[in-house]
This record gives sequence, C-alpha cells and structure tokens, in this order.
Amino acid sequence: MSAPRQKVVIIGAGFGGLSAARALENVDADVTVIDRRNHHLFQPLLYQVATAGLAPTQIATPVRSILRKQANATVVLDEVTGIDLPNRRVRLGDRTLPYDQLIVATGATHAYFGRDEWAEHAPGLKSLEDALALRRRILLAFESAEVAATEAQRDRLLTFVVVGAGPTGVELAGAIAELARRALTCDFRKIRGQKARVVLVEAGPRALATFCEGLSAYAKTSLEHLGVEVRLGQAVTRCDGDGVDLGEERIDAANVIWAAGVQASPAGLWLGAETDRAGRVFVGTDLTLPGHPEVFLIGDCARICDGTGNAVPGVAPAAKQAGVYAAKAIAARIAGRPAPPRFRYSDHGNLATIGRKAAVADLGAVKMSGFVAWAFWCAAHVYFLIGFRNRLQVVLDWAWSYLTFERGARLVIEAVSRGNDGADEVASPQEPARIAS
Amino acid sequence: MSAPRQKVVIIGAGFGGLSAARALENVDADVTVIDRRNHHLFQPLLYQVATAGLAPTQIATPVRSILRKQANATVVLDEVTGIDLPNRRVRLGDRTLPYDQLIVATGATHAYFGRDEWAEHAPGLKSLEDALALRRRILLAFESAEVAATEAQRDRLLTFVVVGAGPTGVELAGAIAELARRALTCDFRKIRGQKARVVLVEAGPRALATFCEGLSAYAKTSLEHLGVEVRLGQAVTRCDGDGVDLGEERIDAANVIWAAGVQASPAGLWLGAETDRAGRVFVGTDLTLPGHPEVFLIGDCARICDGTGNAVPGVAPAAKQAGVYAAKAIAARIAGRPAPPRFRYSDHGNLATIGRKAAVADLGAVKMSGFVAWAFWCAAHVYFLIGFRNRLQVVLDWAWSYLTFERGARLVIEAVSRGNDGADEVASPQEPARIAS
Repeated sequence: MSAPRQKVVIIGAGFGGLSAARALENVDADVTVIDRRNHHLFQPLLYQVATAGLAPTQIATPVRSILRKQANATVVLDEVTGIDLPNRRVRLGDRTLPYDQLIVATGATHAYFGRDEWAEHAPGLKSLEDALALRRRILLAFESAEVAATEAQRDRLLTFVVVGAGPTGVELAGAIAELARRALTCDFRKIRGQKARVVLVEAGPRALATFCEGLSAYAKTSLEHLGVEVRLGQAVTRCDGDGVDLGEERIDAANVIWAAGVQASPAGLWLGAETDRAGRVFVGTDLTLPGHPEVFLIGDCARICDGTGNAVPGVAPAAKQAGVYAAKAIAARIAGRPAPPRFRYSDHGNLATIGRKAAVADLGAVKMSGFVAWAFWCAAHVYFLIGFRNRLQVVLDWAWSYLTFERGARLVIEAVSRGNDGADEVASPQEPARIAS
Repeated sequence: MSAPRQKVVIIGAGFGGLSAARALENVDADVTVIDRRNHHLFQPLLYQVATAGLAPTQIATPVRSILRKQANATVVLDEVTGIDLPNRRVRLGDRTLPYDQLIVATGATHAYFGRDEWAEHAPGLKSLEDALALRRRILLAFESAEVAATEAQRDRLLTFVVVGAGPTGVELAGAIAELARRALTCDFRKIRGQKARVVLVEAGPRALATFCEGLSAYAKTSLEHLGVEVRLGQAVTRCDGDGVDLGEERIDAANVIWAAGVQASPAGLWLGAETDRAGRVFVGTDLTLPGHPEVFLIGDCARICDGTGNAVPGVAPAAKQAGVYAAKAIAARIAGRPAPPRFRYSDHGNLATIGRKAAVADLGAVKMSGFVAWAFWCAAHVYFLIGFRNRLQVVLDWAWSYLTFERGARLVIEAVSRGNDGADEVASPQEPARIAS
C-alpha cells in the first residue's frame, strides 16, 4: 500500500504563493492555497488604481480562476490566525487544516517606524482597498478645493505629500502630478490643475536608492520636470490631520501618502521565530525555518540571505523565484530525490516609471532611461500581468491615456453625504460640504 | 444694459439631468449641475456589475468629464437638502445656490411597499454601491457554500431569490443563473455550479408585464431553460435574514434581491408638492410644478401625463426626452420665443435580455426574441453608453464573456476577516468562517 498523498498548504496567494502552487501542478500532492482575499493582486500597478489610471479588475484576478485547471489545487478563502508547529496544522479560527509541507508567503504591509498614530493621517498602499480609499481621497480633495472658501484651504486641499522615494513613492508622486496637471485641468472651473503641489519627501540622500546614481539623478530631474518638489535628506518629524513637519518646516496638506517602509506580516509571531527589525523571519539558504524543514518561508515575510551575506530584496521576482524553489524542494522530497542546492536569487534588474514617457531601468550591465525605458517598463509589466484578458485591457487603457491624457477610472463610488460618519473626512470643517467616507 | 445671465440649476446628473444640461449648451445661461455622486451611471447595465460581468468604470463616467467642453456648465458635487421656492434657492446644507430656472431630476430608489424592514435582508439595485455590495454577497455565498458544514447550509447559501420580474429582475435572475451554472462551475471543488437555485418571484400574472404577452411567455421559457424557477402570481409575505415566505411556502435563501418597486426621491417633500403613491410629483403637460413655471420636474421623480391620461413610464428614454423638452422651454423663455407645445413622449419600445443569446424587444409594430433580439439589445446598449471609451471596453468584455463563459469582474475587494463588524454577514453562524462586510 502506498503512503497517503502529501498535503502541501500554502498561505498567501501573492507572487510567491501562486508561483509555488503552479510549480506543484504535476507533483503527487494535495495543494491548498489559503488567502483572505479572493484575488491575486498585481501590486506593481497598484499606484495606477490609486491615481485613477486603471480599474481594480485590470490588476486583480480571482485566485480560483488562476488555479481552475490545476486539478491538485484547492483554494480556501479564509484568514489564518496561527500555526500549530508541533501538530503541523494551520489555524483558521476554530477550524484547523493539517499539512505535511507548509509554505508561508504572507507578504508585508506598510510600516510607520514606531509611529503607528501616523497611519490614519498618512495611509499607505498595499491592497485594493487602500488604493480605492486613496483614489477617493485624491479625487474628493479636488472637489473640495473647487468649493473652498479661502485660498489657504484651497492650497492645503491641493497639496499632496508622498513620504518615501522608493519605486512606489516615485511612481505615485509622478502619477499624482500628471493627474493634477493634465487629466483634471479642463474639468474644474475655479481651480486649475496647475495649482496643485506635489512634494516627495525622502530621508535618504537620493530617490530610487536601489538604482545606480545616474538613474537616481535622472528620476529626480524627471519628477521636477513634472512639477514635483523632491526633498532629499529630509525626514518627516510630525504627521497630523493637517499636514506634516519636516524638521522646522511645516507643509499644510490634506493628503499625505505613506510609501516609506514595510513591515512583514505576523508570520514570525505565528511561528515563534526569530525576525529582523522589519519582522521578516530568518530562514536558511534552503528557505526553511530553522529546526523545521517542513516549513518554508518565501517572499516579503522571509529574511533570505543568498549566500553572499546580502538579503534578497522584497520584490516580486524574488518572491516568484523563491516559490519555485520551495516547490522543487517539496517535489524532490516527495519523489525521494535529493533536494535542489540552496536558493539563489537571479537579479534581472530594477524598473520604475515616472509618468508619461519617462522611466528608469537598471538591468545590471544595461542602464536605460527616458522613453526607451518607459516602453520597456510597459512591455514588462503587461507581460507579467496574469491572464490575457488583463493584458489586453491594460494595453488599451494605457494607449488611451497616452493619446488623450484622460484617466478612465476617476470614480468616487459612494455618494457624498451630509450625514457624516466621521471617518476619512477630506473637506475641512469650515467648508459647507462635509465628505463622508 | 442687458439683463444678467439667467442661472439654470439642474439637480441630478442621471439621464434626464444630463440631457437637459447638454441641450442647454448653446443657450445664453449659466448652467449648474448638482449631484451627490461624481459620476453619471448607465443604470440599464448595473445588473452586470452586480453579477461580475462588468467593472464599475465601464458603466460610469465622471460628470465633469462629460461636461468638460461645455463652457457654460459648472458641476457641483454636493447633496441637496431642500429647495427654497419663494426665494428661488437650492439648499446645500448651510449654503444655498440661487436659480432663475430649476430642473429637478433626482430619480428614484427602490421601494418595499411599506415593509422597509425588509431592506436589510433584500437589498435593491440602484447605485454602484448597491451593485458592488451585491457582487460581494453573491460571490461570498459561493465561497461560504464551498466550506459549509451541512447540506442544508449549502443549499441555503446557493439559493438566490429575486423579487420582481420587471426588466431588472429578469436580467438579474438570468445573469445569476449563468454565473452560477457556467462561469463558476470549474472554479470550486466541492460545490458545483449546477447546484445553485435561482427563484424569480412575481406577484403579477406575468414576467415583463410592460411587454406584449408573447414576449412575456418567451422570457419565462428562456429563464426556465437557464434553470430559473419562475413563480408568477406569488407574493412575498415575509422576508428575513434566512429567506422568504411565499404565503405557505418557505424558501431558505442566503441572498434575496429586491427588484420589485421604485419610490421617487424626496423632491416632493422639498417642494411641498402633491405626489402619487410612489412619491412622484404631479406636473403639468409642460413639465412644470403647478404655480411655479420656473420649476421643471423630469424623469423618475415626476408623474408626467402625456395628454392621453397615461403616465409616462420611468425609463431612460423618457427621462432624456423630458430633459431636452425642459431645456428647449428654458431656451425659448430666455430668447423671448414662445414655449414649445406640451411634452410628448415618443415610445421607441422596450428591451430586456435573458442571458447569452436570448432577449426580447417590443418595438411596437416589430417584436423580436432570441438571438436577433439579443444582438439588437447589445448594439442598442453599447450605442447609448456615454463615451467612446466605455463602448469599446464593454464590447470587448462582452465578446470575451461570450467566447469563454468567463466573468471578468469577480472581485471581492475587501479581505474576509475574523474581526467581524456584524454587517452584511454571508456565512451562517454555524460555519467557522464569518465573513465581514
């Protein structure tokens, strides 16, 4: 009699978890993917949803659709509450799911460096909810500015501060500047898009610090060309409902957006494991939890060293490669073959875009900027979007935006209302219209 | 010295209000359009958003974009709280807006015939919020059914009751049946789409009562072919969180959807005017409020008699025609010309679709059903969608759905969570996973 089929449980349907699940397609095992959302999100384009360039459906695909044809895969929509290591079970509230092999791919969220009280004033961007809430805030700021009673109120409503000049911050700042200066220009009568102020604040010495210095400088110049104020070497020292302090300087702003840091999901707590300061669990070069060869950690929740002593960066390609590695290791065990040699991250380079026609690409030997890099960025992102359907739609949307300067997804779904529930208020109290969340 | 420019205020940016605003483009007047939403909604396709066929951006367009190039138009995003008839001012909370001519086009919402307590159990479908909430409920019902502990729970989760067999009810029932039986069939492991039960309840003697009898009968047969149970001449006598009563019969259902009646917006209250039972304000054949020739009422908030004693129906073409009439009457006054003769509604016919390949069209002399009517329905709806962009996207989406049986917009945006806030619960209490709103 043969042994029972191995149960492989994967927590998280992001880039890491999904690539692991797919790589297990032909392995003789039952694969269960758990996520508390019903969709896989193409996070690199999330800033486009927040700035009304793309609709949620264009960057998200139901996990069930993606794994529909994989006969050995089951999808569970639920929230993990813990992991019972000794008994090899994943806790889902009262229920538990047994596993023989576990892959933890729970990702990360934004971090406020110990200033969690800033979260309500400076929302971050990790999920579709975040993006839709941000889109609503940004669009309603323009609406409130159009009816603002004083010049000071209008200026505050039209000032956008983006904290952190990594790829997300740079892309957000560029997209907001374009939204304000071009797409919305003709739509309002009193305010004109030109009046909006976008400030990108970075505590470090340069924007896009993971790129080479030449491309960092190019990114700064491109942003300034779009009208973004780039403040390098300046840290936010205070953040409240009315704006931010940069040391002595005060910037009044109705919208502050946080793109400055990440904090791993609570996988470390569930496992009682050692983590780095960002909450990432230290794993061996085979991606397993020390003392638990049956538990793999991949992606942004893991602190992976590639053998040279450098941490593998928290980017989508690294998560995908780790997912494939973990799947191969599990397949080898099940087949009784030796495990693959230790995980090695192949760095294919870095990409970031700065609005229409400008981008930077750092591919090691090859560095690109300007229109060529932008075209490369478009092609790469569309290529990696899962599903033909999304690809076609995104291409059409970008072509449309490019030709018309239009933004297609400029919807505020909920009605504004005078019966305010208090949350997420955009208009200042002096204004007649209070805007409900 | 010439008189100051006339101020025309339009409340509502639906079909009626927008068509009035556009028809005033070349009139020497300041036109202000007030809406509490930032978008115009193509309501006839709302059921497709609720059933994950289309995304919100595909049927909604920002009002500012639509009126961008109309120099005499201003858009105000705000909620009207009243109308000061003697002083000719619209109240927006503390603020007021003066008018010389007023067009009230505030539409309607769903009505529960005095059983407002049913609203929480049987949501209706009038706004994008409604549609997204319904999409979430429908998709999460399948997720909960997949992990249901008992057969009875599963059956209840997979039973959908649609109340009211007008065009909206028929289109919803057909779309849910298709979603359940085809699009979702391959995505789940335990439940199979075939098990879902869709019941369409109608108190009157036939479906699509505004169509001729032959087409009503065809619609019923087509729905039954899709697996919908059509219950004619049966009224809902009770509606609670677990299902509905139809007289003696009980149907356990996690999702009950209300498509049975409409109630006009509170325009009648604002104006202190006489209304019919559905809250529609009685207006003269020139669409003005009796005693107030400067106040027009159009669309679903008005009770318009076309001279033959019949009420003009609450459909988009009627609202558009009334908007154009009101604009012409105002233009004539401003130019000192005689007013156009009384409003006459030109009925171009009725259309309704019942899933893939089946529809009914009642164009007076011409009656169509089946594939020809479906093709006509598609062409007509795409043609009337405002904006080239939306048209192209909808065509592509329909082509895609038709070829693949896929549904593109199957997103549940928010994460499921164990920290439940109590609202909009889909899973039954016995199940381990509680699903938050």
